Amino acid sequence: MSLDGAVADLRRRLLAAGVLAELGEPGVFGLGGAFTRVFDAVDALYVAAFAHLRADVWRFPPVEPRSLFERTDYVASFPQLTGSIGVFAGGAAEHAELLRVRAEDGRWEDLLVPGGLMMGPAACHPLYAVIGGTLPVGGRNYDVLGSCFRHEPSPDPMRLQSFRMHEFVHAGTAASATAHRDEALPRLAAMLGSLGLEVADVPANDPFFGRTGKILASNQRHQALKFELVTPVYGDDAPPVAIASANYHEDHFGTAFGIFDAEGGVARTACVGLGMERTVLALFARHGMTTSEWPEPVRSVLWPHG
Amino acid sequence: MSLDGAVADLRRRLLAAGVLAELGEPGVFGLGGAFTRVFDAVDALYVAAFAHLRADVWRFPPVEPRSLFERTDYVASFPQLTGSIGVFAGGAAEHAELLRVRAEDGRWEDLLVPGGLMMGPAACHPLYAVIGGTLPVGGRNYDVLGSCFRHEPSPDPMRLQSFRMHEFVHAGTAASATAHRDEALPRLAAMLGSLGLEVADVPANDPFFGRTGKILASNQRHQALKFELVTPVYGDDAPPVAIASANYHEDHFGTAFGIFDAEGGVARTACVGLGMERTVLALFARHGMTTSEWPEPVRSVLWPHG
Repeated sequence: MSLDGAVADLRRRLLAAGVLAELGEPGVFGLGGAFTRVFDAVDALYVAAFAHLRADVWRFPPVEPRSLFERTDYVASFPQLTGSIGVFAGGAAEHAELLRVRAEDGRWEDLLVPGGLMMGPAACHPLYAVIGGTLPVGGRNYDVLGSCFRHEPSPDPMRLQSFRMHEFVHAGTAASATAHRDEALPRLAAMLGSLGLEVADVPANDPFFGRTGKILASNQRHQALKFELVTPVYGDDAPPVAIASANYHEDHFGTAFGIFDAEGGVARTACVGLGMERTVLALFARHGMTTSEWPEPVRSVLWPHG
Repeated sequence: MSLDGAVADLRRRLLAAGVLAELGEPGVFGLGGAFTRVFDAVDALYVAAFAHLRADVWRFPPVEPRSLFERTDYVASFPQLTGSIGVFAGGAAEHAELLRVRAEDGRWEDLLVPGGLMMGPAACHPLYAVIGGTLPVGGRNYDVLGSCFRHEPSPDPMRLQSFRMHEFVHAGTAASATAHRDEALPRLAAMLGSLGLEVADVPANDPFFGRTGKILASNQRHQALKFELVTPVYGDDAPPVAIASANYHEDHFGTAFGIFDAEGGVARTACVGLGMERTVLALFARHGMTTSEWPEPVRSVLWPHG
């Protein structure tokens, strides 16, 4: 089967089984009861696997202030993925005009104006604004779960426009941050292996935009800053799909958000992030659409209490 | 203390205790570990209180397709709350132009174009698209949790621009839908009472826009379609704050989304919805910023296993 065929087939099976429901745009789905039950179990397992980090918990809304977004330089690197929120700022006359355009099937959103908010592109961005200041000796760990928006409409159910990342972030020194990344990756790989997923770790890069982006991506790979855990979803001939990543950011966020280590140096940060929807869908792809028929060892890891 | 003073005081205490963290725009906060622990406990309690409904679980992303949004007529009634997502659709030249505008501190979001996605304004809207078709005899219940966006920036921490609603929705006949609403409200009030919140149910209306909106709001109240559970947060002299609502939609969504009851009539729908962030913050306002010091009866309801 071609890759396109395999993608269409998985999508069809997920929809037919009610794991997902179509909402009318690519990469935007309703998530059904079976999906949600697996999601919650995977999430609990993940938190247990990293409980030793005694991480500070932070949760963030799917939107972030433009002022925060701008400190990450995201739109310079990933304009194609960016989402900005437009809002209505008019009165009765402007509303009448909007409704007139709409009645003529016009694009009334053109009458909206930027509202000072952006779609959050990464679960951990707002964390760096919260951390600020000086870290304790040894650095600190954080548990962050949030909704990410990336404008990359695709028929592939593994590529959503809005999805959740659960990240364990460390902020500290170069030594403590790289140690965090390098210890987290095999631990996460073991957890995913216990769920019956074949995973491999591979050097990776972010999808930087344009010609300059190619150089940035190549540097990121060359310096071995980012690794992904990939798993086969569409057969052995198709490229495997990344379901998790571990990233050393060097001083990128420390500099942008004014975070310092205990010695007063600019903090280094690293994160391990699990793509929650991708992981759940990889499990359905691997074990089938009916969770009651999943292999007993997998079920007992996900639901130890039945 | 004036209402403004009481609002500022609660906000200051929530931030000082790390229950919330400022992100840079009104109504957009980071939610800390204590907040999250209470959130999860309230959510579990709520699900247990409505377990008898055997509701189908659906979860939705914070964005929804424009085509779905348009079927609800939301922008006609609530333009002031609407959010539309703008995306970058250009190539290298347009990106260079965007970065030039940005370098001059210009509003580069003006160069984005509508991306076919809207911010979801209500957790249950996408559900109606999923239900479609004909319901079984007796109707059906649904458990929906989702992120809602409403553009109403405010210094009041009880009024977020992005928040989660957890809803139990019924679709069926007029009789079964109004029964759902009327049974759910006292049940939810009892649950909130067990957490030490004083709640009262009051007739309510949605914040319809403009002069025509005043008439719609008055009709909604007059026909007793919507009720809210309100609790005092800012003292006895200030208006109490709505933390939950129960709503009979008549045939509004049944007609818009082509949902029919078992007899072939247009389905009637009703929902009970708990404002998750508001409820959690009302608990902090009521019992203080340190959960270990909350009254023992409240703690044992939230965390029966300690």
